[in-house]
Amino acid sequence: MSEAYARGFRAASVHAGLKPPGKLDMALIVSDSPCTAAGVFTTNRVKAAPVLYDQALLAAPNAQVRAVVVNTGSANAATGALGLENARRTAQLAAERLGCRADEVLVLSTGVIGMHLPMDKIAAGVEALTGALRADAWQQAASAMMTTDTRPKLATKRTEAGYGLVGVAKGAGMIAPHMATMLAVIVTDAVVPRDMLRRALQTATTASFNRIVVDGDMSTNDTVLVLANGASGVQADEAEFTQALSDVCVPLAQAIVRDGEGATKFVTVRVSGAPCEADALTCARTIATSALVKTAFYGADPNWGRVLSAAGYSGVRFDPAQTALWLRDGERTIQLMAAGAPTDYDEAAAIALMEGAEWEVHLDLGAGHAESWLWTCDLSHEYVTINSHYRT
Amino acid sequence: MSEAYARGFRAASVHAGLKPPGKLDMALIVSDSPCTAAGVFTTNRVKAAPVLYDQALLAAPNAQVRAVVVNTGSANAATGALGLENARRTAQLAAERLGCRADEVLVLSTGVIGMHLPMDKIAAGVEALTGALRADAWQQAASAMMTTDTRPKLATKRTEAGYGLVGVAKGAGMIAPHMATMLAVIVTDAVVPRDMLRRALQTATTASFNRIVVDGDMSTNDTVLVLANGASGVQADEAEFTQALSDVCVPLAQAIVRDGEGATKFVTVRVSGAPCEADALTCARTIATSALVKTAFYGADPNWGRVLSAAGYSGVRFDPAQTALWLRDGERTIQLMAAGAPTDYDEAAAIALMEGAEWEVHLDLGAGHAESWLWTCDLSHEYVTINSHYRT
Repeated sequence: MSEAYARGFRAASVHAGLKPPGKLDMALIVSDSPCTAAGVFTTNRVKAAPVLYDQALLAAPNAQVRAVVVNTGSANAATGALGLENARRTAQLAAERLGCRADEVLVLSTGVIGMHLPMDKIAAGVEALTGALRADAWQQAASAMMTTDTRPKLATKRTEAGYGLVGVAKGAGMIAPHMATMLAVIVTDAVVPRDMLRRALQTATTASFNRIVVDGDMSTNDTVLVLANGASGVQADEAEFTQALSDVCVPLAQAIVRDGEGATKFVTVRVSGAPCEADALTCARTIATSALVKTAFYGADPNWGRVLSAAGYSGVRFDPAQTALWLRDGERTIQLMAAGAPTDYDEAAAIALMEGAEWEVHLDLGAGHAESWLWTCDLSHEYVTINSHYRT
Repeated sequence: MSEAYARGFRAASVHAGLKPPGKLDMALIVSDSPCTAAGVFTTNRVKAAPVLYDQALLAAPNAQVRAVVVNTGSANAATGALGLENARRTAQLAAERLGCRADEVLVLSTGVIGMHLPMDKIAAGVEALTGALRADAWQQAASAMMTTDTRPKLATKRTEAGYGLVGVAKGAGMIAPHMATMLAVIVTDAVVPRDMLRRALQTATTASFNRIVVDGDMSTNDTVLVLANGASGVQADEAEFTQALSDVCVPLAQAIVRDGEGATKFVTVRVSGAPCEADALTCARTIATSALVKTAFYGADPNWGRVLSAAGYSGVRFDPAQTALWLRDGERTIQLMAAGAPTDYDEAAAIALMEGAEWEVHLDLGAGHAESWLWTCDLSHEYVTINSHYRT
């Protein structure tokens, strides 16, 4: 499928010794020519060094980007002045090998917080990466970004206008709403002015990466980058490009939830009948983050009272007596609650629906006409196993 | 220890068929004479029928209370008009047997949401309870309130002034901040005017039941009641009574955390150096509710980056470069972070400390002089087991 990829971009991945032998742990994405670029970043007050570095770089009036270096193993977060220096040094090392300026290289890190980057390994990794660049190495690059992920996340899109997009992402834990959740890089060979790129990225992330919840924990490193090198020669139409970017971001975001730490189910939490869309989303987030709701999802237990209870402490105003709740999959719809009280539903059918791998829970608040939704997963024994011994 | 109990109060417990055979599932607390009473209740917008019923009863200008009926099995929440009628009917049944008015009987329910009370069993249970009242049956009454609790929660206090207090509580899951968390009833034979009782209860719950987090889910049924029947003849001094009430509420609240669903550790989360006390508490709550922090507690993993990251998304303003973090138990203090970056701490010692059953994690934000704390537990495999199949 290399013809579907964005022209003028190459990728590479290596094992640099940051993870156990045999596992890819560094990736590099390079454009043959300078790109316009945009990024959205975590809103966590504790921002990792690479986030601070990239934000400063992209804020420069004439920012242009040639490459992105990714490492796993260490998040380079809560590492003080040395962490920032190590981020700069990583970019510098790549720039020297690629023959560009250090301020044309972005860096992404993911892994343990509060651990300094092992710069000898990083330096050797960067050197190996620059010698391994290929136009069709995206799947391996996505693999090299993985931490507790169980599979790489890649999405591509070819537009009728004649340009393409490729996106890679990682993310499985510390995934929460209200920000740009996790690491993702999307590249395109379209000609896209920087302002248009920024607007398109905001729109696309709002309906994709900002709609997912795994565990409700907001990371220090969340970053989504988009690079446009113009190699197709096609001037992007803003509406078409924004749609194409969303078409790449949505499957990447959904892939993160499907591969959520310990996840066994992919659940859409839909809230309708809200006073406004922001309230609907707040309510959906509260439901999707509730440990009790998520364990009930895991156990295929149609314990809808937990969903209603979470809505009740979300801060959104509604009258419980006006609420209704449904379970839904591709084939069936089962109403569990009407007017705030239980219906005479078929318990066995509800359990069978929830035992499926993908379904929706829909709460109507009866307090307006706004609606929103989130994608989330369940909370399983495996989530606890993964996170109680993540570092060991 | 019956001499330590509050005079003029009796309690009873029975198996009414709401839980499997052999398990106590209803309790009754009765005062021989009318009591002043006060209550604090969940702030969840979805309030259970017994909460709405009790709130209305206690709001009456001349409210006085003779008894409290408790049932497990069904929370009588999200049960509409029939649920409220069933709460009233339960009080009426008890009042008829006790020879008092229905509006002198409070009701408490805990269990599954969205399930109607089985009124035939409730009626038989109330009848059995009224025949089983004893002055020294408090431990059994506490047992009859349990759901996923593994042990009853009882606390007593005898004051120098010559009156006593007895408290019983239940709670293990759906425990979260910002409200009166769970069910608790405290009785005293002191003479306490209603206004003083209300003020004392607010003060005591702020530093006890509102300082605990198990899973971050706020219940629809949380209620703390205090009844004063004056049988000792001693007029309570407000300062002494408030302190005595706190002395009963604190161990009950701590007992709920120690018995939290699946809990293996009791952890104090302390936040200092905050701009104001409310910020310190908000930050502590965000840390104590984080799934990643709680699984790290479970695994005795000194992954302090998760604590800092949670503080970073708590909404509280601080500069990460000014933060510091310690682990502490009765014997040792280990500093893991200084000035926002890792110290050269002894990893094995930190793990050993966290393997203990009770310790403190202390984050200083370096942004002021206010401090606060919360009591919480870890998130274990057992929590997931309990909550994925709670109803089955």
